[in-house]
Amino acid sequence: MNTEAFFKITYGLFIVSSGSGNKKAGYVANTAFQVTADPPQIAVACNKDNYTAQLMNESKVFSISVLKQETSSELIGLFGYKSGKDTDKFKSTKYITGRTGVPIVTSDTIAWFECKLVNQFDVGTHIIYVGALVDNDLLSADEQPLTYDYYRNVKKGKAPKNAPTYIKETMEKKEMSKAAEMKYQCIVCDYIYDPAIGDADGGIDPGTAFEDLPDDWVCPVCGAEKSDFEVIG
Amino acid sequence: MNTEAFFKITYGLFIVSSGSGNKKAGYVANTAFQVTADPPQIAVACNKDNYTAQLMNESKVFSISVLKQETSSELIGLFGYKSGKDTDKFKSTKYITGRTGVPIVTSDTIAWFECKLVNQFDVGTHIIYVGALVDNDLLSADEQPLTYDYYRNVKKGKAPKNAPTYIKETMEKKEMSKAAEMKYQCIVCDYIYDPAIGDADGGIDPGTAFEDLPDDWVCPVCGAEKSDFEVIG
Repeated sequence: MNTEAFFKITYGLFIVSSGSGNKKAGYVANTAFQVTADPPQIAVACNKDNYTAQLMNESKVFSISVLKQETSSELIGLFGYKSGKDTDKFKSTKYITGRTGVPIVTSDTIAWFECKLVNQFDVGTHIIYVGALVDNDLLSADEQPLTYDYYRNVKKGKAPKNAPTYIKETMEKKEMSKAAEMKYQCIVCDYIYDPAIGDADGGIDPGTAFEDLPDDWVCPVCGAEKSDFEVIG
Repeated sequence: MNTEAFFKITYGLFIVSSGSGNKKAGYVANTAFQVTADPPQIAVACNKDNYTAQLMNESKVFSISVLKQETSSELIGLFGYKSGKDTDKFKSTKYITGRTGVPIVTSDTIAWFECKLVNQFDVGTHIIYVGALVDNDLLSADEQPLTYDYYRNVKKGKAPKNAPTYIKETMEKKEMSKAAEMKYQCIVCDYIYDPAIGDADGGIDPGTAFEDLPDDWVCPVCGAEKSDFEVIG
């Protein structure tokens, strides 16, 4: 299998949300696509482990927000790399409530679609949810949508572990003796943790090895967790 | 419904093929996407009327060819705007035969995927076919894939009538008295038919109105049919 071939498939990047009332969830998706024009129906592929999948099953509604090219790393970090079970993603995010009661993210959004769930198909680790269009809007006609390719190549982002396109990466382990000097990079926003500098805002003194950072330490730029960092030497 | 919002959803452009032996079919698709990573599965949404859908049902195999950015209008015209019931699309097209016997188009292709059908879901006018990856290859690491957005905005192409993204367009009718002067443009390749010039290669004399062209007249550049032309004044 040639894994590089998969990166030639073009995708956009979206926030798919579900729920109603106090229960709201959303995640960063690259698989959202129109499946029929008459009537208009849109499908998304969602990992079964996502909290959003749970709320899809309960509320039977979902929304898709098309992200603009210059979407902030913070928004992608929040919706792509954190679980809605632990974090209220909508607390610091602009959103509106659709006719069906579903939350629709409008931060960094150029177009959105509100859908009523009409079908769901089990494909293994993921479910394909098919929705009938209830309402939609174009918020910005001139701005370009964020594509997965742009996110990977320009923003240097990687797929979250629950994405259909996630590919396991093998990483050469560096010698442990060098641990105190090793720099780590956030896969979400590219922030580099340098042990020589530490992280003053996070209360981390210079000279602290990445491995010795507390488990609850997060990226000072986008809020990604320690597990979202990769060694860069 | 805001139809412009739909154009903010990012897609690639692909040729999806099916069949085996002498029976081969393929069409231009914009909905091809990975649905799971473990195991790798890819889905396509295909119109039930497509000959390819018929051969999918029979052969239980399909392939996806990822088209390069500078794909020829002739290839898109052949696979996107003609039916395999009437035309042997593979006669003038480069392709290989995969392990499963499925044809895999390699003309203007930068990567391909061969899949065994594992599931199919009826979503109305279209069927979502889910395939398990059998084989794949990257033919060109450096070339950019053709995106639907690039095809629409740079190549000025439109969705075929069987595409999930096809949107009916209402067109202001021009006065019939001007018919003899009216120019028509091919929606596939942008060729302009000018009645003042005619089409010497097609045996059409100057001064022939578009409406008076024979029904079997085709675009001299890409082979699209008369019905694939739009009046431009």
